[in-house]
Amino acid sequence: MKIRELARLIEGMVEGNDDIEIKGLSGIEKAKSGDLTFAIDEDKLAGAEKSAASCILTNTTTRKSSKALIRVTNPKLSFLIIYNTFNAPKDRGSFIHPMATVSDSAHVGKTVWIGPNVSIEEGVNIGDHVIIESNSVVKKNCEIGSFCHIYPNVTLYENTKLQKNVTLHSGAVIGSDGFGYVKDKGKIYKFPQLGKVIIEDDVEIGSNTTIDRGSLSDTVIGAGTKIDNLCQIAHNVRIGKNALIAAQCGISGSTVIGDNVTMGGQAGIVDNVTIGDNVTIGAKSAVIGSVKSDEIVWGVPARPIAQTKRQMAVLSWLTKNFRKEGGRLGKG
Amino acid sequence: MKIRELARLIEGMVEGNDDIEIKGLSGIEKAKSGDLTFAIDEDKLAGAEKSAASCILTNTTTRKSSKALIRVTNPKLSFLIIYNTFNAPKDRGSFIHPMATVSDSAHVGKTVWIGPNVSIEEGVNIGDHVIIESNSVVKKNCEIGSFCHIYPNVTLYENTKLQKNVTLHSGAVIGSDGFGYVKDKGKIYKFPQLGKVIIEDDVEIGSNTTIDRGSLSDTVIGAGTKIDNLCQIAHNVRIGKNALIAAQCGISGSTVIGDNVTMGGQAGIVDNVTIGDNVTIGAKSAVIGSVKSDEIVWGVPARPIAQTKRQMAVLSWLTKNFRKEGGRLGKG
Amino acid sequence: MKIRELARLIEGMVEGNDDIEIKGLSGIEKAKSGDLTFAIDEDKLAGAEKSAASCILTNTTTRKSSKALIRVTNPKLSFLIIYNTFNAPKDRGSFIHPMATVSDSAHVGKTVWIGPNVSIEEGVNIGDHVIIESNSVVKKNCEIGSFCHIYPNVTLYENTKLQKNVTLHSGAVIGSDGFGYVKDKGKIYKFPQLGKVIIEDDVEIGSNTTIDRGSLSDTVIGAGTKIDNLCQIAHNVRIGKNALIAAQCGISGSTVIGDNVTMGGQAGIVDNVTIGDNVTIGAKSAVIGSVKSDEIVWGVPARPIAQTKRQMAVLSWLTKNFRKEGGRLGKG
Repeated sequence: MKIRELARLIEGMVEGNDDIEIKGLSGIEKAKSGDLTFAIDEDKLAGAEKSAASCILTNTTTRKSSKALIRVTNPKLSFLIIYNTFNAPKDRGSFIHPMATVSDSAHVGKTVWIGPNVSIEEGVNIGDHVIIESNSVVKKNCEIGSFCHIYPNVTLYENTKLQKNVTLHSGAVIGSDGFGYVKDKGKIYKFPQLGKVIIEDDVEIGSNTTIDRGSLSDTVIGAGTKIDNLCQIAHNVRIGKNALIAAQCGISGSTVIGDNVTMGGQAGIVDNVTIGDNVTIGAKSAVIGSVKSDEIVWGVPARPIAQTKRQMAVLSWLTKNFRKEGGRLGKG
Repeated sequence: MKIRELARLIEGMVEGNDDIEIKGLSGIEKAKSGDLTFAIDEDKLAGAEKSAASCILTNTTTRKSSKALIRVTNPKLSFLIIYNTFNAPKDRGSFIHPMATVSDSAHVGKTVWIGPNVSIEEGVNIGDHVIIESNSVVKKNCEIGSFCHIYPNVTLYENTKLQKNVTLHSGAVIGSDGFGYVKDKGKIYKFPQLGKVIIEDDVEIGSNTTIDRGSLSDTVIGAGTKIDNLCQIAHNVRIGKNALIAAQCGISGSTVIGDNVTMGGQAGIVDNVTIGDNVTIGAKSAVIGSVKSDEIVWGVPARPIAQTKRQMAVLSWLTKNFRKEGGRLGKG
Repeated sequence: MKIRELARLIEGMVEGNDDIEIKGLSGIEKAKSGDLTFAIDEDKLAGAEKSAASCILTNTTTRKSSKALIRVTNPKLSFLIIYNTFNAPKDRGSFIHPMATVSDSAHVGKTVWIGPNVSIEEGVNIGDHVIIESNSVVKKNCEIGSFCHIYPNVTLYENTKLQKNVTLHSGAVIGSDGFGYVKDKGKIYKFPQLGKVIIEDDVEIGSNTTIDRGSLSDTVIGAGTKIDNLCQIAHNVRIGKNALIAAQCGISGSTVIGDNVTMGGQAGIVDNVTIGDNVTIGAKSAVIGSVKSDEIVWGVPARPIAQTKRQMAVLSWLTKNFRKEGGRLGKG
């Protein structure tokens, strides 16, 4: 496809020769002649110019270049739109591997692909165009909506409900028992874990992430939310739409999270609090109370980010200056 | 069952109509007419009164209600006693799925259920009434006591010993090699990991939790201990009885933990220290030394909780007041 | 083997009867008569003397003993050299379990052992002397070098490349999609994840650790590096040679790490930074910027360790003394 045709696809403006044939897409590092790459700023543009790439997607403010440019508002977004245009996910066709174990009482939709050593238990309902890869286990009465993709070695406990186009990466465990116990006279009793997990449309869950089922209500992951690897979502948690939760985060029991929330890696939230819409939680934060909509919090414990930064600055100043002024540690 | 009969079962005192027939149990949120629910305080009681529930289990101090109440000391405990009375775990009967691979030299007890794609290696000894679900792997010479329940996709390395009534959730890995290396002249040598993991009676281990086997001694999890999802227990660790360890905690090598210890989520303990009995470790704490019995510690690094809280208060005061008093940051 | 023969093997100096026959190796705790154990300091030596061990490997500076000693520079290293001499890993022979699913287009080397319920997809290339245990999944076009050992329930995504002698413990997921999204007008688009994971020679990866494949470049784990359980290595990360990364660490996207780096448990590093050679990162640190070679950093956020320790000391002094001097909290 020629540069001018690609530019039309993403409503970009060409600078330079728009007649060059583009044969592939690549990052700056691996770009070959004939490739389109992208550069989100001047630094990256300099790198892209040194590469063998034949055309560079960039924003509207970077400098001119000896290479052909396509200027757009969001080069990274335009790059992925082009990628997706030429790499539509292929339907794998209808297939149940002879080494898969599918219960007679399971319902399997159209054009479903089930790999070897998959176990599908009684009463499971699988929609159309679903892919379930090798060695995954789907326990009783789960519902799997159309276009879901379950990678190898995933486990779904009973009654888990995946809506449409949910992606679960390897090792994810959805619907296991919540950590609910009652202590009485030195003995520990397990509290019933009877709820389920509901994962709404277009959610992606990372490798080895665990989501516990509700105890008496349900655990819910809102539409469009993306959760990275090794996260823990406890029982009864409700996460809103379009959250981005980075790796190794933990959300404790019954906490409710609004829409468009972002969590940096290794952050944690205590149980039974409410996080508003559009909240950003910095990496490794310990959120120990509710957070209002639109706040940015960070720290251990987490506070509004300006406050945490000022606190760090004050502490650094004290650490540096204390001894000098008083002759000994801490004498102000 | 009628309210008066349920009350007798849990030694509760009925207030209101004790003749109503109870058909089910549920949380406040999902309660239907005919259901029993529970309310641990005035707030929850108000919620329960608005629900369709026909009877509310509550404590001895909440206000009167227009709904029938059963008053007990610990409503949550009584609720689970009633639940367990009517939901005894069902024996699944004797079953070995034709797609399971069970070594001829393994011993399988009575009324054992083994799902598809399970792999049981040489010399394994499985007690009575054990359930091993789909795609779990039990390596050589493991011992699995009676009434153990192993969920799908669990791995037990060689020689792991589960005593009675141990529950392992999906993705748990028990007995993998500890992280033991010796550095010499820039090279890293793997130290032998020859011990095993012993898990005592009534332990429950969460999804994707990892417990390494001992290097030269054993790793031991004491009776009644409950470990949540995604925890890491390193080689040679010994945990006492009835610990409650929340998700994403890490306990480093050779650390010894007493009885009745509680750890909040994402807490960590360094290697080679001793934690006494009845210690509580707050969420996200970094425990960098031994802790005496009965202490409550919190923080990074962890200190007695009153000290950590005072430190946070002092630091907050300084952060707020410093600039005002001196005209510039840090001038006291 | 006699003590004098063992001493010769490790170039040690015998003190006491060098004619005793050694029948086994063990830690101090489990030592029986006829065993060799080791003691790295005076304390351990005292313990070893109380044991039934017949000979103690120790360093060159500990006191004399009534038991036979072998003195060496590094007793732990010498212990493992003796262990490895007598416990060479056994070749399991050529074996493909009938319950394994191996694609016709996969190439399987000599003396390869493949367990039950393993799934090997199209185009996979497996070198000689490889072991792939039960229920592991190797997706399309992976390359597995000679002498690799893959424990049960591991998943390798497409195109993953393991060089020689790589060990992957159970539940590890290598090559899953990185957490890369582009937000535009409230919608979240998945960015293509097209790179692969390359794991160089002699690497060991712990249980349930996840390593994401690169987005447009590759994720690389350098030769000799050891990664513990439950770690997260994000897309495009490059780790140098001989790193030691303890459990539950997280390394964010595109971060580059030099050679001989050590990370304590639960530490995290932000994305897009550079960590030099020989850097040590303390447990639970939050590294929020680049770190120069040879530095030791610790803390949340991580700083040079002396600075973090002084900061903690200053804060402790303030916390203890503030009230006394001013009559109220914070009045200096």
